[in-house]
Amino acid sequence: MTETKKLIEPRTLKGFRDFLPDAMIPREILIDRVKSVYRSYGFVPIDTPVLEYLEILAGKGSDETDKQLYKFRDHGGRDVGLRFDLTVPFARFCAQHISELGTPFKRYHLAKVWRGENTQSGRYREFMQCDFDTIGTTSGVSDAETALVINDIMERIDLRSESTFTRFKIHLNSRRVLNGLLEKLGLSESTVPVLRALDKLSKAGRANVMREMEETAGATLGQASAVCDMASLAGLSNDEILQKLDAMLAGNELGESGVASLRDLVAALKSAGVPDDRYVLDVAIARGLDYYTGIVYETFLDDLPQLGSVASGGRYDNLAGLYTKLPLPGVGASLGLDRLFAGLEELGMIEKTSSSAKIFIPLFDAALINEYLKIASQLRKAGLGVEIYPEAKKLGVQLKYADKRGFTTAIIIGSSEFEKGMAQVKDLVTGEKRDVPLDQLKTILM
Amino acid sequence: MTETKKLIEPRTLKGFRDFLPDAMIPREILIDRVKSVYRSYGFVPIDTPVLEYLEILAGKGSDETDKQLYKFRDHGGRDVGLRFDLTVPFARFCAQHISELGTPFKRYHLAKVWRGENTQSGRYREFMQCDFDTIGTTSGVSDAETALVINDIMERIDLRSESTFTRFKIHLNSRRVLNGLLEKLGLSESTVPVLRALDKLSKAGRANVMREMEETAGATLGQASAVCDMASLAGLSNDEILQKLDAMLAGNELGESGVASLRDLVAALKSAGVPDDRYVLDVAIARGLDYYTGIVYETFLDDLPQLGSVASGGRYDNLAGLYTKLPLPGVGASLGLDRLFAGLEELGMIEKTSSSAKIFIPLFDAALINEYLKIASQLRKAGLGVEIYPEAKKLGVQLKYADKRGFTTAIIIGSSEFEKGMAQVKDLVTGEKRDVPLDQLKTILM
Repeated sequence: MTETKKLIEPRTLKGFRDFLPDAMIPREILIDRVKSVYRSYGFVPIDTPVLEYLEILAGKGSDETDKQLYKFRDHGGRDVGLRFDLTVPFARFCAQHISELGTPFKRYHLAKVWRGENTQSGRYREFMQCDFDTIGTTSGVSDAETALVINDIMERIDLRSESTFTRFKIHLNSRRVLNGLLEKLGLSESTVPVLRALDKLSKAGRANVMREMEETAGATLGQASAVCDMASLAGLSNDEILQKLDAMLAGNELGESGVASLRDLVAALKSAGVPDDRYVLDVAIARGLDYYTGIVYETFLDDLPQLGSVASGGRYDNLAGLYTKLPLPGVGASLGLDRLFAGLEELGMIEKTSSSAKIFIPLFDAALINEYLKIASQLRKAGLGVEIYPEAKKLGVQLKYADKRGFTTAIIIGSSEFEKGMAQVKDLVTGEKRDVPLDQLKTILM
Repeated sequence: MTETKKLIEPRTLKGFRDFLPDAMIPREILIDRVKSVYRSYGFVPIDTPVLEYLEILAGKGSDETDKQLYKFRDHGGRDVGLRFDLTVPFARFCAQHISELGTPFKRYHLAKVWRGENTQSGRYREFMQCDFDTIGTTSGVSDAETALVINDIMERIDLRSESTFTRFKIHLNSRRVLNGLLEKLGLSESTVPVLRALDKLSKAGRANVMREMEETAGATLGQASAVCDMASLAGLSNDEILQKLDAMLAGNELGESGVASLRDLVAALKSAGVPDDRYVLDVAIARGLDYYTGIVYETFLDDLPQLGSVASGGRYDNLAGLYTKLPLPGVGASLGLDRLFAGLEELGMIEKTSSSAKIFIPLFDAALINEYLKIASQLRKAGLGVEIYPEAKKLGVQLKYADKRGFTTAIIIGSSEFEKGMAQVKDLVTGEKRDVPLDQLKTILM
């Protein structure tokens, strides 16, 4: 048989990634932690198909998302697409199943989404979203829980340990505060251009933002100035900000209700034991201009503010209006897993390992294979992770493999040790060795 | 504003499924257990893109898979497709990264795949695969570990409890045993039609299988009879079967090496403490005719044999020959999650719940909201899952919700209880109530 067959070049599509174990192991650890936080609040998992009818996906999309949509005609002649977020499928899901599920309904959904983004901006075309939402209630309890879930997740993002991470801040605002001010100023009709300008406050500066408000929203100098004044409230305690907002919004019902909801939220977080320095009222954040209607959330790492928000969301009036007449108010947020990972990497908060087991048994003596299998099995029953090297190569080669993968302990048993009922336990980090009776291995390693 | 907007019908594509919480919660529990078994043997997670270049996917595929492939041209004019299994992407992945990863390499991959199947046969077009493989070694240790992983997973499939499930059998064979016999009989050139006929032994019966072998493989009556004789070895102990195989294959090197590897495997499983009644040598199983070359595995539930194998795999000589000249032998298996779930459901081995938290706090008195948040937060810190109902509806309505979702315990605190520092703890299964001091809640509920 002559080998003239041409090889197919192994490669991935632009904007798509393979995850090797050293990247995937910390991702799985973080995802497990995120899920356990969701579950601890009673959020339940759902899943939806990766492919949806195109009309479902295109229903809500802007021109921008439509352009980025992966779409095609399937075998049955149906126009279909890959979901570009988890919100649209969730809206479709709720319209279809909410009468069976009942409300309130608290769900989480961790899954991939696809967008044909321009990869030059460093964006990926396939990435994961981690959403959680409480549907069918306007309760402040759900607003508070959304912030509590973000807090509990952020406390657990240091993947080197189980210790509590504290160097982050949740920024809180209410869209009613902003909308109330615009109403009071007579700028309600120009909400979108005003907020679009305001969004640039931290980057473009006050003067430029005011100029844009004048040009695109037809705001007067006084109106633009009032908006920027309110959005710039900073360097004050949360209580002081709330007092200033009371004054600024006095007499405007919408704005007053927004301040009241922020005041309730702050009191709730305090009661739940969240330290004061974990959250700030930030009147500048608006988010999802045509979607959010109540409390909005953004979350920043103290040491990497330029990374942008790693967990964001808000309250909305109606999730699924495109698919059902049933009104479904809700509140939720999404963890930006890829962005957060970029941050954790930059801050050195990811433990480098390519092993999911900690204990390594070299195949030191091929005649003892079944003994190694027996010992490994006993240790696994005790809850330990154990890998046996499958080939009787030189011990040095095997230990080099163990070292490269990140195992922490090796159990070395040659025939002479075995006859004495002993094993050598080697700490692969310090290099320290000690002899341990085989029947005490379990106790010593746990 | 008049509501003339037409609603978009919320629906999913044929062959695609939404997973509601009562289906998704047990899936997540099982997936967590499966992963923890994989990890306990040192298998590490990887992930690959859902979309691949079409030439990668079409490279290995048969006409059948090609027809079922979801394929299209993307924004950049590339021909792409949705993966139809995890093996082809893994082969591409190894060809691309194995020099960086080194061998042996043990990976697991749990992810969705897509096939445009005929849905009339009850098949889904989107389903999950749970693969694990050891690459770059021909070691018998890896063969044994593959069976051990299957055993450990199967022991944990009873989702109602943590207790060990035992009513399953792993069927073991070696393709070398079958191929050795065919070689000895002079039927090597007709391996595929012979094994295709043999595959029908349990359903079609010996006479029909022999006739097919004569017709499609040109086998003589004697040859067909010898193959069926060997494949029918049953009702004997594993040791007895091994002895019979020794005799049947004497003088044929390939067959003898196959029997030796089965003998080693049985000894290894015994050493690792797997009870004898968990596995059987079954010379009839062949699997993946043009792929597997060594030990092959199938797994059946004792009480649902007609369900088919729920965990299958085998040893192969070369994983990635289409993409690299580097020879990559390996062994692995795949858990049939959807089929297994159908079985667990039929056997009543799934606990019905729509809640991921166990403790429910009704919002009995709206004035106490922050106290409920405080208590819930303290219980969560102790590792308990707690949901607070977000609205101050009638207690009966709230408890009905808790009951429907499957919460087990309610903590009811009205203002009079709260003033006395007490809570009423209600067992939602038995209906039993007791009064508990607030500061003892944690201790009592854990």
